[in-house]
Amino acid sequence: MSKKNFQKQPSNTKKQLILYGRHAVISALNNPKRKTIKLLCTKDTASEVKQYNPQIVDRKEIEKLLPPDSVHQGFALVCNELPPVSLEEIIEIANTKDSCTILILDQVTDPQNIGAIIRSAVAFNTLAIIIQDKNSPPETGTMAKASAGMIEHLPIIRVTNLSRAIEQLKKAGFWTIGMDGYAQNTPANIKKGGKNAIIMGSEGKGMRRLVEENCDITIKLPMNPKVESLNVATAASIILYELNKE
Amino acid sequence: MSKKNFQKQPSNTKKQLILYGRHAVISALNNPKRKTIKLLCTKDTASEVKQYNPQIVDRKEIEKLLPPDSVHQGFALVCNELPPVSLEEIIEIANTKDSCTILILDQVTDPQNIGAIIRSAVAFNTLAIIIQDKNSPPETGTMAKASAGMIEHLPIIRVTNLSRAIEQLKKAGFWTIGMDGYAQNTPANIKKGGKNAIIMGSEGKGMRRLVEENCDITIKLPMNPKVESLNVATAASIILYELNKE
Repeated sequence: MSKKNFQKQPSNTKKQLILYGRHAVISALNNPKRKTIKLLCTKDTASEVKQYNPQIVDRKEIEKLLPPDSVHQGFALVCNELPPVSLEEIIEIANTKDSCTILILDQVTDPQNIGAIIRSAVAFNTLAIIIQDKNSPPETGTMAKASAGMIEHLPIIRVTNLSRAIEQLKKAGFWTIGMDGYAQNTPANIKKGGKNAIIMGSEGKGMRRLVEENCDITIKLPMNPKVESLNVATAASIILYELNKE
Repeated sequence: MSKKNFQKQPSNTKKQLILYGRHAVISALNNPKRKTIKLLCTKDTASEVKQYNPQIVDRKEIEKLLPPDSVHQGFALVCNELPPVSLEEIIEIANTKDSCTILILDQVTDPQNIGAIIRSAVAFNTLAIIIQDKNSPPETGTMAKASAGMIEHLPIIRVTNLSRAIEQLKKAGFWTIGMDGYAQNTPANIKKGGKNAIIMGSEGKGMRRLVEENCDITIKLPMNPKVESLNVATAASIILYELNKE
């Protein structure tokens, strides 16, 4: 199986995962939507989460459960994936608002980058992130850790067909803005407020043509031509910051 | 030795390092200031840099030289560290300009974060980065890779005393702006143009008190209070983008 082809989970399976790291674990424990199964702590950290009855274990017991060199800080939580959220549910919420931003990721596959984007998306009041199910990694401990636990606060919608999702958003009154290093426009050319859907492609390859053709406008961040592209999480953070200002 | 105490190099030693990854290696080969020692490629990648007479080796030969799981893409370059740049040299360049931005990092220790900051700093036309010598990692392959090779395009100034460097910048006409999650002001409160020095502390701990007292103003990025802080490279990228606009 290639790195970029993630196995699709049958939708009726509740997949388990292991979260780790202080922020990721404590945020999950505080999220009523997160079904937790077992909390493991070291004797140094157990007092921080004693109301959740942690099982006190040796650091090595935690390390055995995680990928090598995971910075777990003495916290690991076996739990279920968050329940799925549908695009229709999010559009219903958007219908009650005058302005909001949704972020669409086309072929962004690195869990670290997706986690970092989630953290910034919550910081800048993004309503939801949409990803294509078959090209995106599942929810993982690495992603939750990179999000500093913010994955508990942001709906992530997995769709089969991104172009169709973009069309649904347009019908719901969203303006669709593609980020593209070759675009002529910049954030100065988009109007703030209203409902915006930002579409980001992968680093290097950018958006796929079919997705790009669905954009109302494409923009780039003004930058020195020495730099071919920014890191995708950095570029996403900047545009979400920009739309959240004022 | 604790992770955060980096061994100081005697200033007369030319330290060698190994760069890896396509962008990092090709940028270094194109940088006349980078003294290169040996270029290693796989037979698949050698044609991309044939004018530099690469030594063609097996992937495993490259892997033996690098930290485990380094994504080298078939390129490794043994070379010297870049020659040091002094604050005085940069102030001389600043004196010839009406406006410019310098970024000061106080206790930012993660080479990945520093590399990511370098990439954004070049993208947004930052004049230089200043770090404290004793609390900062040396130039490494990891840092160069995270910068996508942009480390070749940005002077990094290592100083003994950050507070003294800030005072020198003030005397040279710089406005000093500290980033602080508890600040009342936002980027809307700083005037664009002119000479600005942005000061960022480490994630979690922030700037040290002595450094903060030297700031003309402190600002924070407006964000949802659910998020305690942004990743330091994300926050740096946003403020450098903001100052480079228009």
